[in-house]
Amino acid sequence: VVRPRRDGRAGNRRDVGSSRPAVRYGPVSFLSDYGLEDEFVGIVHRVMAARAPGVPVIDITHQVPVHDVRAGALTLWRAAPWLAPGVILAVVDPGVGTARRAVAVEVASAGAVLVGPDNGLLFPAASSLGAVTAAVELSGSPAVADGRGATFAGRDLFAPACAALAHGCDLGRLGRHIDPDSLVTTAVPVPGIGPDGAVRAEVLWVDRFGNVQLNAGPGDAGHLGSGVDLRAGTDRWTARRAEAYADLAETEIGLVTDSYGLLSVSCRDASAAARTGLAVGDEVWLLPAAGG
Amino acid sequence: VVRPRRDGRAGNRRDVGSSRPAVRYGPVSFLSDYGLEDEFVGIVHRVMAARAPGVPVIDITHQVPVHDVRAGALTLWRAAPWLAPGVILAVVDPGVGTARRAVAVEVASAGAVLVGPDNGLLFPAASSLGAVTAAVELSGSPAVADGRGATFAGRDLFAPACAALAHGCDLGRLGRHIDPDSLVTTAVPVPGIGPDGAVRAEVLWVDRFGNVQLNAGPGDAGHLGSGVDLRAGTDRWTARRAEAYADLAETEIGLVTDSYGLLSVSCRDASAAARTGLAVGDEVWLLPAAGG
Amino acid sequence: VVRPRRDGRAGNRRDVGSSRPAVRYGPVSFLSDYGLEDEFVGIVHRVMAARAPGVPVIDITHQVPVHDVRAGALTLWRAAPWLAPGVILAVVDPGVGTARRAVAVEVASAGAVLVGPDNGLLFPAASSLGAVTAAVELSGSPAVADGRGATFAGRDLFAPACAALAHGCDLGRLGRHIDPDSLVTTAVPVPGIGPDGAVRAEVLWVDRFGNVQLNAGPGDAGHLGSGVDLRAGTDRWTARRAEAYADLAETEIGLVTDSYGLLSVSCRDASAAARTGLAVGDEVWLLPAAGG
Repeated sequence: VVRPRRDGRAGNRRDVGSSRPAVRYGPVSFLSDYGLEDEFVGIVHRVMAARAPGVPVIDITHQVPVHDVRAGALTLWRAAPWLAPGVILAVVDPGVGTARRAVAVEVASAGAVLVGPDNGLLFPAASSLGAVTAAVELSGSPAVADGRGATFAGRDLFAPACAALAHGCDLGRLGRHIDPDSLVTTAVPVPGIGPDGAVRAEVLWVDRFGNVQLNAGPGDAGHLGSGVDLRAGTDRWTARRAEAYADLAETEIGLVTDSYGLLSVSCRDASAAARTGLAVGDEVWLLPAAGG
Repeated sequence: VVRPRRDGRAGNRRDVGSSRPAVRYGPVSFLSDYGLEDEFVGIVHRVMAARAPGVPVIDITHQVPVHDVRAGALTLWRAAPWLAPGVILAVVDPGVGTARRAVAVEVASAGAVLVGPDNGLLFPAASSLGAVTAAVELSGSPAVADGRGATFAGRDLFAPACAALAHGCDLGRLGRHIDPDSLVTTAVPVPGIGPDGAVRAEVLWVDRFGNVQLNAGPGDAGHLGSGVDLRAGTDRWTARRAEAYADLAETEIGLVTDSYGLLSVSCRDASAAARTGLAVGDEVWLLPAAGG
Repeated sequence: VVRPRRDGRAGNRRDVGSSRPAVRYGPVSFLSDYGLEDEFVGIVHRVMAARAPGVPVIDITHQVPVHDVRAGALTLWRAAPWLAPGVILAVVDPGVGTARRAVAVEVASAGAVLVGPDNGLLFPAASSLGAVTAAVELSGSPAVADGRGATFAGRDLFAPACAALAHGCDLGRLGRHIDPDSLVTTAVPVPGIGPDGAVRAEVLWVDRFGNVQLNAGPGDAGHLGSGVDLRAGTDRWTARRAEAYADLAETEIGLVTDSYGLLSVSCRDASAAARTGLAVGDEVWLLPAAGG
């Protein structure tokens, strides 16, 4: 007999008659800059499997560039709508072992708790899921941590905390409550509009396929028409609005609404990043096409 | 008490007394060209975990070269005997968002349903598992899809369809039936035999270890003896038939029957691809060794 | 209702009233040099999912350098304390298909069985977990193996053996008992002390972050003080003992006790391996800093 686990929405997991605490959150989603060359990710999984058997742990990605908190924060922000309800473990943590706080941040309306370092990594995702209803500084008490050293908090502090949360442990048992307003923030940049209607955007992400995600959505560019001039530094391209990558001609540069609802500079069967040289952080101006 | 899930053979999963539909297929095997740098794979997993909790989802590989439908089709074809019974999700989909069909293809004799774009990706694997007994074009109806955009069908269409299938949803509820003969095909090339008994083979795959898989099996080369001349363009090597890589001398080139039952040009503790320069798609002629 | 699986400690998993054998060991931890580009890892997972449904299989890493038995052995040795109790599957196997033995090695005190080739890969991890209480040479009998060829033992021999073990199969049913003292060994090098108190260490590992792990622990270097001269060949650096990477100044080289309890040459937000050129196998001498 197969007994499928139910989704992790808070409250619907009462394990009547069991001495274990109820499973309250779950699955656990896990993002880091640990990479896959070393054993870090596997050991974190193994610690959670021992402490929260039966709770699925889903790898979001572990190839956030090393110590790039902003890239990790933006990845988590993009993914967040699909990760709740549940526990979200994120570790990009150059300050591991120092006075930077380790935190768990609850967004009750989404049934989510985010766990990781308090360095801005969690902030955009948490904010996008709803109001932060509580936050604790993880104490590393023996009940929820292994006191093995100062350099692998994912294994020794965050994984035990996530396992405890997934099995129904109250947030307050993981440490002392802190003011949610004291959490370190990371801003997701917003697009600007010039007096001539030009849109000032920024490149947020270049994906494996070479799509160049901007921080502007179709609503920001609705007044520009179907042909759009893109300017970055001294470079200039004419892009055509399209529904799908394969709607573009082979030599065309397209402006496509991507799967996160943002505008993406894209090509058909080719990397727009390689063709344009655009990279994360670049400023891109969008104007009505001269010939349009 | 551990209640192991049973294997996914159709028919043996009646969840008596549950309001959920029976689990009919499963596990889900998942192959794509999404890579592991971005969050694509993790989000697809998370969508399936929400919609089909308890169904294992096994990553076959996500490093199919970007948009290389043929490479993905051959990988799936090689792996297929180990993936049935179950649901097989495959996404290498340069035409996402266009008129290319999204399909689910059933091979009832193998207890398998393959889900993905109708661009030839699924064909060799499906054919190798048995006769296609039904096929549907996925409609993207709200019951089985999230209508979020045109560029991430893995998340919005295929994952929901796989989750529904894994939990026993009838194929016909996912969309309209289409003629299996209308599916886009991909040919796995067959080896040829010249008048002199020479075998014309093609390189199907170079693996991480540098083994060069040909499309010919030991039966195709049985008349050639234990020494075989290999010719590719103007290059020529003498290879020795061997049972195992480590049976070769260090400088030798071997011809080994690989784990898929095909001949592989291989070296001991070294990459045969690097040593010979052979690459996917190359034509290789096999002849009796001149000195043999 | 969620029925969490219990941890895999031997003896606490009696599946009363089930016709399946009790689950005795589990989860299965899996390390290899298979990489993630090909389908090897996925197929091994799929074989275990079919033969041991419900048993979690956790990937430790699959990016051990190709055929580098020593690197794999050291990775497994580092990870071992977190992998027991359970089954540990490790495959770095250049001699696959030859007379090298395939083995399962039990460390009863840790509730662990290690499965893989008998080429030294398993030895440091097994030894670190406790006394080896039994070892068998896997016979590849039909009950526990698929007789498909000589080149993919992970799929055809090791995965079935692990699945059988995870479900409670007695070690002795997997093959004939062999003398544990006959297992191939791999030595983890020990540091030396020169007459002047200098410590002769060796680089064991460079991780993704560029931390350079030595085979010496803080106890070996306690007499050196907080400033330490490092010498490798003709190169020389002065390192400062620190608790955490971020306690270092940007240009400093640090000597940090890492998460495995060993000394690591490390930098703040930078790769110490890139800065020093140190690589696995290099000899490094540690002396009191000239100015200290």
